[in-house]
Amino acid sequence: MKHYTIAVVHGDGIGPEVCRAAVRVVEAALGTASPLVFREYDAGAQHYLETGESFPEASFEGCREADAILHGAGGLPGVVHPDGTEAGLDFTLRLRFELDLFANIRPIRLYDGVRSPLRDVKAGDIDYVILRENSEGLYAARGGGALLRGEVAIDPLVQTRHGVERIVRKAFELARQSEGAPRDGVRRVTCCDKANVLRSYAFFRSIFDRVAKDYPDIETEHALIDAMAMHLVMRPSHYNVIVTENMFGDILSDLAAATVGGMGMAPSAEVGAHNGFFQAAHGSAPDIAGKGIANPYGTVLSAASMLDWLGHGHSDERLTDAARRIRAAVETCIRDGLLSADIGGSAGTERITAALCEAVAGVS
Amino acid sequence: MKHYTIAVVHGDGIGPEVCRAAVRVVEAALGTASPLVFREYDAGAQHYLETGESFPEASFEGCREADAILHGAGGLPGVVHPDGTEAGLDFTLRLRFELDLFANIRPIRLYDGVRSPLRDVKAGDIDYVILRENSEGLYAARGGGALLRGEVAIDPLVQTRHGVERIVRKAFELARQSEGAPRDGVRRVTCCDKANVLRSYAFFRSIFDRVAKDYPDIETEHALIDAMAMHLVMRPSHYNVIVTENMFGDILSDLAAATVGGMGMAPSAEVGAHNGFFQAAHGSAPDIAGKGIANPYGTVLSAASMLDWLGHGHSDERLTDAARRIRAAVETCIRDGLLSADIGGSAGTERITAALCEAVAGVS
Ligand SMILES: CC(C)[C@H](C(=O)O)[C@@H](O)C(=O)O
Ligand SMILES: CC(C)[C@H](C(=O)O)[C@@H](O)C(=O)O
Repeated sequence: MKHYTIAVVHGDGIGPEVCRAAVRVVEAALGTASPLVFREYDAGAQHYLETGESFPEASFEGCREADAILHGAGGLPGVVHPDGTEAGLDFTLRLRFELDLFANIRPIRLYDGVRSPLRDVKAGDIDYVILRENSEGLYAARGGGALLRGEVAIDPLVQTRHGVERIVRKAFELARQSEGAPRDGVRRVTCCDKANVLRSYAFFRSIFDRVAKDYPDIETEHALIDAMAMHLVMRPSHYNVIVTENMFGDILSDLAAATVGGMGMAPSAEVGAHNGFFQAAHGSAPDIAGKGIANPYGTVLSAASMLDWLGHGHSDERLTDAARRIRAAVETCIRDGLLSADIGGSAGTERITAALCEAVAGVS
Repeated sequence: MKHYTIAVVHGDGIGPEVCRAAVRVVEAALGTASPLVFREYDAGAQHYLETGESFPEASFEGCREADAILHGAGGLPGVVHPDGTEAGLDFTLRLRFELDLFANIRPIRLYDGVRSPLRDVKAGDIDYVILRENSEGLYAARGGGALLRGEVAIDPLVQTRHGVERIVRKAFELARQSEGAPRDGVRRVTCCDKANVLRSYAFFRSIFDRVAKDYPDIETEHALIDAMAMHLVMRPSHYNVIVTENMFGDILSDLAAATVGGMGMAPSAEVGAHNGFFQAAHGSAPDIAGKGIANPYGTVLSAASMLDWLGHGHSDERLTDAARRIRAAVETCIRDGLLSADIGGSAGTERITAALCEAVAGVS
């Protein structure tokens, strides 16, 4: 029987709470014959404070060699490098760049039972994927950039043909796979850029247009980033798959999460040719850490994506089946009103986790 | 009696319709003794198609020498330079850079009578200003940048001490002036950046923190751009003045406009040490051009800002008084249900303009 090694990094703030919750739900879904082996590693801002290292080499090696990586959340305000950037983010950013996790897949879905801050939308109306380029763009400048005489700071935004082409292809593949989600009956990929002003975004768009010809079954459209931000508020039900540069994807995915209840409801999967890294899109929320009130749904849904990704990669139905049951359990629990404080309820992390564990065993 | 020269550029799409509407309302507010002299100049995508020039030198000189510049809207899709960027935007972008219009002031206000797509907000709840740095940041790369062998495109994001310091000071000055708008009883400036990841944004934040010490009467806070996008949806009533880099300001101001009814309701003022440039934040909307249904409120409110700016600069109360009456007329007309199609009504540009002209004369 094949086994899978999962590198687990709890991280900072609420990270350990939501990460442990997700591991419990995954194990409940897989039962006693679970093929997963969890190995815990240290990284993050707290670890940096204690040891001077934000991401020890042994942790990096453990993550790189694992079959998948599961993370809670990283970062603590004020724990910064000399250039002012945050030490607790080294973990996420180094994995993205060194393991070439080029595709950051962020599903945006309004669950039945969660109140959207938008009027006039109901469950099912918002159901799309933001595909964020995760290996270049403005983030390519991280750790680089220049500060001249304390007077001029420069961060280069870099987009490559190779990088854009692979993320755009991934967008079309995702649109083809989108199950319940084609909008108005069509599968649609929206290319979001700022091609009207900047050359590198015009370059992104030109590659999108060329690749689109290979997918005549998918409808395509362009949106400028500013208009896109408006549209996600004014007509979110229009979208199916949105593909965009790294920084734009960062911004849009938080905005989109707001429309479906907030960061607590936002899972994410970061995948490359060989590695997969799974964590909720939210931060470490140190203000509510240790209170037992963190929302575990984002991390649990990210763990479900992990099982799907592993299951598809290894043709292992035990995993895809468990993923399906976790998603169903999340739907049921939320519909039953099991809501954490951030989404307007009063259920604690433990209560939600226990209910999910029970539900995944029950669902068939 | 002092006179003021206003350079008027109609531009593309709905530009001429909304620009003419604004001129009529301004003239109605100032009456027969109006001290404004309007001079029309050509620029834009249509002009580029006809002449090969998007912004003729004579138009640039006219704008530079005028006391203020009023613009409709510019740009037509597909009318692009060889590098893929839009020709119709040369007007706006060249003015910003060559006249050093470093402060782009974008008031966001929910009017009584306009339906927000957000639940739970009412008129008065949303009333803040986005102050967008308008002379550097990612836009510094416009027309520059590099494309290497068709393989790698680079656009440098540039932030300077001088540039950041002056926009941050402007933010604190605006907060001090904010009349009805302090939130929860406090005047507050929010610095929006991505200091956790990029050096140039950490630089922006460090300058903000230092300048803040000169304004102990104003409350300050930091927000990362991704969290900020979420907050503008989830708790818009928290904000008073938000200051941010050029590209982030571009994105946030459209998003914010969505929460108060859309781009039709979004005025903007772009000012430097010597020049002032006024246009709605919306684009040229060629799909509805010539139909008589464009929303003139954004341009009318931008023209009111023009009168305010001129009036304060020249201590001329005729102008500030007219600005006040235009704003009051806009409030009245909207409260009376005079809404264009984009904000859920059926009133055409002409009907709204006529009503505004009547109202500005009536209000005292
Ligand atoms: C934690 C941070 C580095 C990260 C980012 O900026 O990409 C986060 O905001 C995200 O969206 O994953
Ligand atoms: C028209 C375009 C150049 C402009 C920008 O990108 O700044 C517009 O979107 C704006 O917000 O003023």
